[in-house]
Amino acid sequence: MTVTREQVEQAAVRIDGRVRRTPVLRVSETVTFKLELLQHVGSFKPRGMFNRLLAAKEDGSLTGVGAVTASGGNAGLAVAYAARELGVPARIFVPQNAPAAKVARLRTLDADVVQVGSEYAEAYAAAVVASEESGALFAHAYDQPEVVAGQGTLGLELLEQIDGFDTVLVAVGGGGLIAGIATAIGDRARVVSVEPELAPTLARALEAGGPIDVQVGGVAADSLGARRIGEIAFEVAVRQNITPVLVDEAAITAARQELWREYRLATEHGAATAYAALTSGAYKPAADERIVVVVCGANTDLGTLS
Amino acid sequence: MTVTREQVEQAAVRIDGRVRRTPVLRVSETVTFKLELLQHVGSFKPRGMFNRLLAAKEDGSLTGVGAVTASGGNAGLAVAYAARELGVPARIFVPQNAPAAKVARLRTLDADVVQVGSEYAEAYAAAVVASEESGALFAHAYDQPEVVAGQGTLGLELLEQIDGFDTVLVAVGGGGLIAGIATAIGDRARVVSVEPELAPTLARALEAGGPIDVQVGGVAADSLGARRIGEIAFEVAVRQNITPVLVDEAAITAARQELWREYRLATEHGAATAYAALTSGAYKPAADERIVVVVCGANTDLGTLS
Repeated sequence: MTVTREQVEQAAVRIDGRVRRTPVLRVSETVTFKLELLQHVGSFKPRGMFNRLLAAKEDGSLTGVGAVTASGGNAGLAVAYAARELGVPARIFVPQNAPAAKVARLRTLDADVVQVGSEYAEAYAAAVVASEESGALFAHAYDQPEVVAGQGTLGLELLEQIDGFDTVLVAVGGGGLIAGIATAIGDRARVVSVEPELAPTLARALEAGGPIDVQVGGVAADSLGARRIGEIAFEVAVRQNITPVLVDEAAITAARQELWREYRLATEHGAATAYAALTSGAYKPAADERIVVVVCGANTDLGTLS
Repeated sequence: MTVTREQVEQAAVRIDGRVRRTPVLRVSETVTFKLELLQHVGSFKPRGMFNRLLAAKEDGSLTGVGAVTASGGNAGLAVAYAARELGVPARIFVPQNAPAAKVARLRTLDADVVQVGSEYAEAYAAAVVASEESGALFAHAYDQPEVVAGQGTLGLELLEQIDGFDTVLVAVGGGGLIAGIATAIGDRARVVSVEPELAPTLARALEAGGPIDVQVGGVAADSLGARRIGEIAFEVAVRQNITPVLVDEAAITAARQELWREYRLATEHGAATAYAALTSGAYKPAADERIVVVVCGANTDLGTLS
């Protein structure tokens, strides 16, 4: 499986008007933030989910039965939001121990929330079965071409919004966002993946020569907690020669605090992870290197920032 | 006292590179937010304070003695920040009952914080005396031409960033921001002032035919708590025929919650006040009226949003 730039360009046409064109903020001579945390439902995920659902509507695989996914996090919110906007039902599978606040938020988006099993893998399996039995469209959180192509529209926006840049820093969980952005940007800039040391799905896969399960945990696991990099993301990372960088827990927490203190951006830990590569020195740009930091989500407990 | 567009244009040149060009976010067919809450120290105030200090540096009235103001809020933070950036001392007068968190934040910006008297008027009087005795430059929170002209640079940015708009909604306390924006925009768009019912400094002044003291309170008083509209703001409001709108406490609180829930913007109550005019229906735009809402500050206790 892979994704082409043409698919990203098609996605941009398809989802036009459904997602926000999020702004950029230049914060120094060389650093610009992409403020994707201002996207609908607080993360980049609706880009991919709208593209998945709308493409399926075109080819007839999205019917009145609606869509299904497994996610108590940003992907679930995005499927629920996109389905509601398109007037079809969404069924979201989450583990039984999913936080009540997340379940409640999904229900405010009119989703049918099904709590199954003790961990994500069981909810995922149940979602796949439900899709096969009901005919509902299965939307994967990060490893389907339409999903990746939709996330890539963020990369097309960067090319339009910023007059020349050398490097993009992107946080990686399952890799849907970085794969889309790298596909959109091609050889116009370097793409750097930033992962928590405690959730290094892409870095370990690159060492191993292919996607492998890794132990994941840490402060950013609520958004970057995929246990295995996507097949698509792995393929794109190799094709585009993505540079992997790891950051530690303290760096993520400090970057998140700095984003609030200095820029009044209230982000989730996963979204602060990309910035942490700069602030911690885990990624050391050249003196005149023009950097874009993708600030990709804000689904966070504000109480932990105040 | 008044302010001209030429003074605003001069301010833009003077403060270029000192303040952030904050982005805009289009949120519907007709509504765009100006994200000024992302400015340095979390509000629009550095625009005016940089212009005040830099203009004084040019004419010799800002010396090594530095600058002084009276404010435990956004104006104090802005003077402290601008002075530090320009390498001169800042002395900030606040009442003895100023919140410890605000005093601490001013001190992190290297300001000399002086706690005097039981209310703002006493701190203000002490700041004026200190300025006269020491030769430090007095920077008024909102009622000096250079301060208003600096705030007006936000209006110039709107004209560059948005391709045509009909109306700008601006929250009003002392009126520095709205006076600057109205001066920058001239007759290119309607400017609407939005005030809490509990802090109606401009609305009451327009009724009375001139600035008068009003009782102020309510949830937004920490940022919109000036007791009297500035002379400059009053003059500009009459000249530009600014439309006054009032919103109640519940509308402000609901708008602030919506800004977080729907847009992931964590704002202070004062900054949510402008948006409250739309969400509450206190201001009813025509169907195709293109509205800009200035979201002007984020110095808030996040604990009250979570």
